[in-house]
Amino acid sequence: MKYPRVLEQLIRLMQKLPGVGRKTAERYAFDLVLSWQPDELSQLSHLLIQAKAEIRRCNVCGALTDEVDCLFCSDTTRTKDVLCIVSSPREIFHMEATREFRGLYHVLGGLLSPLDGRGEEVLELPRLTARLENQNIKEIVLALDSTLEGDTTALYLKRALESYPVQVSRLAFGIPVGSSLEYVDGGTLARAFMGRASF
Amino acid sequence: MKYPRVLEQLIRLMQKLPGVGRKTAERYAFDLVLSWQPDELSQLSHLLIQAKAEIRRCNVCGALTDEVDCLFCSDTTRTKDVLCIVSSPREIFHMEATREFRGLYHVLGGLLSPLDGRGEEVLELPRLTARLENQNIKEIVLALDSTLEGDTTALYLKRALESYPVQVSRLAFGIPVGSSLEYVDGGTLARAFMGRASF
Repeated sequence: MKYPRVLEQLIRLMQKLPGVGRKTAERYAFDLVLSWQPDELSQLSHLLIQAKAEIRRCNVCGALTDEVDCLFCSDTTRTKDVLCIVSSPREIFHMEATREFRGLYHVLGGLLSPLDGRGEEVLELPRLTARLENQNIKEIVLALDSTLEGDTTALYLKRALESYPVQVSRLAFGIPVGSSLEYVDGGTLARAFMGRASF
Repeated sequence: MKYPRVLEQLIRLMQKLPGVGRKTAERYAFDLVLSWQPDELSQLSHLLIQAKAEIRRCNVCGALTDEVDCLFCSDTTRTKDVLCIVSSPREIFHMEATREFRGLYHVLGGLLSPLDGRGEEVLELPRLTARLENQNIKEIVLALDSTLEGDTTALYLKRALESYPVQVSRLAFGIPVGSSLEYVDGGTLARAFMGRASF
């Protein structure tokens, strides 16, 4: 038993979305065909093309933008001498949601992953070092995942930036706010203990 | 902090997919913008419009089709006197995957749900009774969810069809194949006991 051809194509394409398997793709495709209004479908159809055309990466920091100038690089109220390094444009929005950081961003091309064959070229390091040479950066905050890839990348960057007069820091490790000690894993608890602060 | 406008619109629209909340919609939208190739995006964009235009419901049984005649109603090898009643077009594909049923289908407009204010009009009963009057149907198999809505609808249909010379049956309840008794709930076990068959 086969689905109508267009439906099958739609299902296959929906499976390209992150974390979407065959069943979920089928659910989405049926919902699109059966429940969405024609104007919603044409709006989505239009937005897919428009988004790719309008949204670009900032040449300096790599953030997503639909303006000529990137929202962050062009904001005169932001501190210009602190760079927060993230691995993808989306994480900028997570950092912004904290309202704690008012410096500039720098998006790497990805994280190092020797196992997946992603070497130093993914970091696009020359883009970063060019900024360090041209702008007066005093501090770099590594806002990277606490994973094998994030840790490897953080260590690599720390060494690669040793010859530059910048202070390199990394986000603190510790107990997630609101969590009970009982459910915190040993590794996290150890890092929280090592990083204990006077209270 | 706001996302670029087009991205925000894309996120909002993706949230209309079933079971997709804000976080997942953001993940999908970023993936579409950052990782999809332009030709994949234009293919998806095109398919959304094409699917709505090409795929229609069969006037007789309600199945999805992109042909002039519905794949099931026009199939001369299928048994014409048994109707399998399902609540949505997608379930036809689930039934077909079993390769156990070779009769015809009938898709209801939905399931009864007094709590959600869905009364008998959603069943589109005249469509079904017209078939019973015009076609020589001998048996109706209710392939409905085992939920409050499914049970209510099954009971309603059983009574509504009493005056027609058809035998009404419903899918058997029992232990899911491959499952251990330990994990089968009491209600299911009771139904499996009541429906026990000589072995």
